[in-house]
Amino acid sequence: MKITQRVKKILANYESDNPGTKTKLARMLMHGRLGGTGHMVILPVDQGFEHGPARSFAPNPPAYDPHYHFQLAVDAGLSAYAAPLGMIEAGAASFTGAVPTILKLNSSTSHATSKDQAITGSVGDALRLGCSAIGFTIYPAADDQFEMFEEIQELAEEAKSVGLAVVVWSYPRGGNLSKEGETAIDVCAYAAQIAALLGAHIIKVKPPTAHIEQPEARKVYEAQGIDVSTLTARIAHVIQSAFNGRRLVVFSGGAAKGLDGLFDEIRQIRDGGATGSIIGRNTFQRPRDEALVMLDTIINIYKGRA
Amino acid sequence: MKITQRVKKILANYESDNPGTKTKLARMLMHGRLGGTGHMVILPVDQGFEHGPARSFAPNPPAYDPHYHFQLAVDAGLSAYAAPLGMIEAGAASFTGAVPTILKLNSSTSHATSKDQAITGSVGDALRLGCSAIGFTIYPAADDQFEMFEEIQELAEEAKSVGLAVVVWSYPRGGNLSKEGETAIDVCAYAAQIAALLGAHIIKVKPPTAHIEQPEARKVYEAQGIDVSTLTARIAHVIQSAFNGRRLVVFSGGAAKGLDGLFDEIRQIRDGGATGSIIGRNTFQRPRDEALVMLDTIINIYKGRA
Amino acid sequence: MKITQRVKKILANYESDNPGTKTKLARMLMHGRLGGTGHMVILPVDQGFEHGPARSFAPNPPAYDPHYHFQLAVDAGLSAYAAPLGMIEAGAASFTGAVPTILKLNSSTSHATSKDQAITGSVGDALRLGCSAIGFTIYPAADDQFEMFEEIQELAEEAKSVGLAVVVWSYPRGGNLSKEGETAIDVCAYAAQIAALLGAHIIKVKPPTAHIEQPEARKVYEAQGIDVSTLTARIAHVIQSAFNGRRLVVFSGGAAKGLDGLFDEIRQIRDGGATGSIIGRNTFQRPRDEALVMLDTIINIYKGRA
Amino acid sequence: MKITQRVKKILANYESDNPGTKTKLARMLMHGRLGGTGHMVILPVDQGFEHGPARSFAPNPPAYDPHYHFQLAVDAGLSAYAAPLGMIEAGAASFTGAVPTILKLNSSTSHATSKDQAITGSVGDALRLGCSAIGFTIYPAADDQFEMFEEIQELAEEAKSVGLAVVVWSYPRGGNLSKEGETAIDVCAYAAQIAALLGAHIIKVKPPTAHIEQPEARKVYEAQGIDVSTLTARIAHVIQSAFNGRRLVVFSGGAAKGLDGLFDEIRQIRDGGATGSIIGRNTFQRPRDEALVMLDTIINIYKGRA
Amino acid sequence: MKITQRVKKILANYESDNPGTKTKLARMLMHGRLGGTGHMVILPVDQGFEHGPARSFAPNPPAYDPHYHFQLAVDAGLSAYAAPLGMIEAGAASFTGAVPTILKLNSSTSHATSKDQAITGSVGDALRLGCSAIGFTIYPAADDQFEMFEEIQELAEEAKSVGLAVVVWSYPRGGNLSKEGETAIDVCAYAAQIAALLGAHIIKVKPPTAHIEQPEARKVYEAQGIDVSTLTARIAHVIQSAFNGRRLVVFSGGAAKGLDGLFDEIRQIRDGGATGSIIGRNTFQRPRDEALVMLDTIINIYKGRA
Repeated sequence: MKITQRVKKILANYESDNPGTKTKLARMLMHGRLGGTGHMVILPVDQGFEHGPARSFAPNPPAYDPHYHFQLAVDAGLSAYAAPLGMIEAGAASFTGAVPTILKLNSSTSHATSKDQAITGSVGDALRLGCSAIGFTIYPAADDQFEMFEEIQELAEEAKSVGLAVVVWSYPRGGNLSKEGETAIDVCAYAAQIAALLGAHIIKVKPPTAHIEQPEARKVYEAQGIDVSTLTARIAHVIQSAFNGRRLVVFSGGAAKGLDGLFDEIRQIRDGGATGSIIGRNTFQRPRDEALVMLDTIINIYKGRA
Repeated sequence: MKITQRVKKILANYESDNPGTKTKLARMLMHGRLGGTGHMVILPVDQGFEHGPARSFAPNPPAYDPHYHFQLAVDAGLSAYAAPLGMIEAGAASFTGAVPTILKLNSSTSHATSKDQAITGSVGDALRLGCSAIGFTIYPAADDQFEMFEEIQELAEEAKSVGLAVVVWSYPRGGNLSKEGETAIDVCAYAAQIAALLGAHIIKVKPPTAHIEQPEARKVYEAQGIDVSTLTARIAHVIQSAFNGRRLVVFSGGAAKGLDGLFDEIRQIRDGGATGSIIGRNTFQRPRDEALVMLDTIINIYKGRA
Repeated sequence: MKITQRVKKILANYESDNPGTKTKLARMLMHGRLGGTGHMVILPVDQGFEHGPARSFAPNPPAYDPHYHFQLAVDAGLSAYAAPLGMIEAGAASFTGAVPTILKLNSSTSHATSKDQAITGSVGDALRLGCSAIGFTIYPAADDQFEMFEEIQELAEEAKSVGLAVVVWSYPRGGNLSKEGETAIDVCAYAAQIAALLGAHIIKVKPPTAHIEQPEARKVYEAQGIDVSTLTARIAHVIQSAFNGRRLVVFSGGAAKGLDGLFDEIRQIRDGGATGSIIGRNTFQRPRDEALVMLDTIINIYKGRA
Repeated sequence: MKITQRVKKILANYESDNPGTKTKLARMLMHGRLGGTGHMVILPVDQGFEHGPARSFAPNPPAYDPHYHFQLAVDAGLSAYAAPLGMIEAGAASFTGAVPTILKLNSSTSHATSKDQAITGSVGDALRLGCSAIGFTIYPAADDQFEMFEEIQELAEEAKSVGLAVVVWSYPRGGNLSKEGETAIDVCAYAAQIAALLGAHIIKVKPPTAHIEQPEARKVYEAQGIDVSTLTARIAHVIQSAFNGRRLVVFSGGAAKGLDGLFDEIRQIRDGGATGSIIGRNTFQRPRDEALVMLDTIINIYKGRA
Repeated sequence: MKITQRVKKILANYESDNPGTKTKLARMLMHGRLGGTGHMVILPVDQGFEHGPARSFAPNPPAYDPHYHFQLAVDAGLSAYAAPLGMIEAGAASFTGAVPTILKLNSSTSHATSKDQAITGSVGDALRLGCSAIGFTIYPAADDQFEMFEEIQELAEEAKSVGLAVVVWSYPRGGNLSKEGETAIDVCAYAAQIAALLGAHIIKVKPPTAHIEQPEARKVYEAQGIDVSTLTARIAHVIQSAFNGRRLVVFSGGAAKGLDGLFDEIRQIRDGGATGSIIGRNTFQRPRDEALVMLDTIINIYKGRA
């Protein structure tokens, strides 16, 4: 595998990491149909934990089987597959080397009565399962935000020391935040900044709206004339907030919409300078053939061909 | 001991486990009268902790003696015997090699004022007592659910690293859950999914009712037409929720009923694809002779002969 | 020292313990005037912590001196002496080998505003002080019961690994328990069961009353016709609840009474099958000569001579 | 690099530190345009965490890039650059040896609902990134003050053992403190004292006002006639409170003011005997050229030339 | 240095300690003008933490300098000097071997909103700074008393294992205790007992009043006719409560009074059998010459010459 100039340039941004971690980043950036382009499309499957099995898999029953998702990620030529412990354990040997995996180390349930997650995996688990990265969700603004920051601080330090990459899902919620504020542009850019400051290599945030949540921030956005009028502009602002593009940022799908709306949104995300997309339910809740067609289009969008 | 094809197939589902852990799973699956069939009947005796000695053993006083249960499990040809620390310590040497044991690592009491359990044993205890597996109870939905998930995450990782198997009792309760919801089909399937995601090798849940607890889940069950009309159908849905059958699932006895009702229930559990049954009070609260007869029938049910 | 058949039989019940721990149990069972009989009388002196020095020692001022209690235990021919860290440190060298010691590892004060105890010693302390056992108090039913169970789980595992015995004071209190319920027969038998399940070698409980606290338990006691009419019958039920006599159980003195009342109570405790008595204030709050006479009678009761 | 007499004298005040830590202190004291003078000007960039990216960097967009701050600190000839994990990781290799760095090990966000900070870095991180010191914020008076003291106690002990210096931001807030009290002279002097007692090598406090917050302190200030009438006198009192000048103390900028006001304040800080200034937003929120001019003047003030 | 018979007798009371710890006790007991007499006068300087710098040092400004206190302790011929981390670090090398030091390992501030202290030093710190002992404050009766007991249990065990002595400040407060009760004779004697039981070598308590706080204790004090009528009698009762004199007990100064009142109080403390005095503010808040004269008189009182 010959690392492309584009990927070399990205890796150079991770200047403090050891060769082990850089190798894992390279593995994800060079894998699949977007390999070498600097773009990534990741398949995350943690809905079984978050929403339960029926809500996650009943629309497409083959997806109850953990092998289904590995195979889908392989066949679609995705960059990586992210899931909690049991899902990875159930397929890690069958799909050894077939697709880079990201072990989600914390999880929540729809039963949860607080804005927090449980640690459900370890760096040791990620190593024994041959994963390329650990994944971790933080809830900036939540009453437990500091505990979550401290957890990822410890896990990330350990992961980096053993040559793994770190992916942070940064989802503001809880505390004094309004529901609308969870996807506000100021809050989303802040979430990307926090993840970067915590040492994430790859940051996952939601596509932001034009809403501005914090009064102190609003003053600055207005005074400085920060453009938040289009999604592309907002994405660009988030990328800027991730160390001016020195960190990889992938975006989840936004609110429910048709395929055309999704593709259009992804084009804007791409045009804003995003690394790529991380698409879960939209993928595995469709019949496999439809999912493969959809992912093909998304990949082509990032290749600039759609 | 020649491993049967059926058991080899099951073991293949535990593809990330080391040979030590697979050996312990094989030991339980190849032991007793159901050895080699892929089915299991397990004797759990943790009622002394949960309800106190008189409520547990007075109906059949020889059961006050820890040796009684080892001997019963041996004579009935069961697959394994599960109990808390003191119970195993009191017989582990006398019954060395006679029956696989599962050390229950957490326990509650009927005095408890919160939905939680205390850690009352360790992986080190399980090793020094020659156990095949650790057992652990989680209460999905409870206010302390995340703490329990984190406890089993650490214990399971340690257990797997030293070649032990992991059995998780997944009993939803507490939090916002209604009493009826504790055995609702959506909640029970979710409980199996959570245990699987946490890395359990063997999952114990209760036989589910047709009630659906969570409104968001109800929508999906109705929209997708998931069959919850018969116990057999519900069991099949739970098995599906345990990684589409890649994880062993055993069911406790349901509400109190006569022997015929029990046998009928177990036939439905079997027909739904369950691994087997885990039967405590129904076993040791009867005179020994009656218990042996009852277990003989249950075993025959799983052999397809009753 | 030639181990008697009676003691060999008792030691055989501790079948999972290593020779180090069995040696410590043998040391206590073979020591003093009851050595070899299978009975024990233990001197506990933790009242200084629980009630303060004046309430504990002013009635017999020589008892302010830690050496007093060592000497008393030696001269009375008792089986062991139990006390908190400072008390043992202050005499452990002077009385090396003179009497087995039990280091109490947790303690409370009369200032306490919650039902809990502080850890005030360690297994390492017990080892460096040449103790035979660690002692630990649990409060089944208390809001902090689970924390206490987890503490003794860890301490007991460590103690057993280094060849020490484990003595558990099981004193129900707090939570939903009534004052009368603290010594109810169902609660006391349950307390013995919990200590046994937690892995205690020697269990200390209070002599139970005929009161039954828990409604669910009352149903069983009545349905099964469990005899709780005499202290002897109740003691026998507690012993039964301690793994059917596989665990040593000692009883503290009950409510204040005259010496004749005390001796009569101890005869009933003995007749119920108890291992022995653990007598603190009743011993050291008397003049030394009177205490020695009293202990002589108690020992003779356990020898069947009084 | 020949250590000046002035710096040797300062280093002598750190008489309990090992040569490794003294070397790091020397590195900061000998670096930049103030090298050798005993004065320091430090660039701290933790506003991205505290206030979010737009509020921090939008006024001067090149500052979104972590390299910007390294370069600014280098070009201005500053003594050191302090920032959280991600900021240092993103430039530590490119600027190896170019400027001493201080890794901020805890951080807060503007979402925070309590007066506390999260641990967001480790001593190990500081070592692998080649930092000269760790930085840590305490909030004396906050409800969580003791937890913060305990965190820095552990981190400082570890840092000193591996030859790093310790910089403590001592910012009173929370608890019973009024808003005005946060910068009161008694509270600020106390904050410096606490940081010194906790073992800080370099202490950062805010310039104090003449307000006296604590009634018990007011009595003493009045009885002893402590001069708090001018900023210079108050600075001198803070320096006195930092072990009579045995610890380095740097001051942040006070309330918003024009450049002339800032320079005048810094002259008073200098005249009070301060080690130097630590200037964040005032620096990086200006265009780079203006910032360099401003820093040049500040450095000249400390050189006694402005 | 030839150990006196008096000191040898005292050291014999610490019969469980290793030679390292005994050496440290001997170092303090043989140092200064009271060396060899069995008496001690200790200088504690933790007021900077507890009350802030101005309230502590403004009455005698040279005392802002940590060296001042070392020198004062040396020149007055005191037995030891106790202070928090920063104070010891700032002089430990300059005064190596000049006076035994006690590192205070926990501290509070006047901002505190709860009855607790923060851990602000470690046993490792005490070792690297060449200290003879660790110091630790407990608040018997406080809501956090058990946490404090557990902290000193761990620290004391570690200190003893590395040959350090343990000094416990036992200051009842909080919980259900009245203000008057903090110095009540029953509470003070209990505080000494608790410190002794926790394994303290040297115990610091306040001189008790004749008030009796706890109703249960009052009954015993009256029934047993314990003499609490004079300070000398009360001191003797406290000493008795410290293992009948087997533990060293030093007393802080009582309520504010003139020098004559102080000397008279110390004579009574001495006559009650106390080991000595620990005098902070009364010492360093006077001009140095006056302090030396005062300490000279106090030392002479303990020598029986004043």
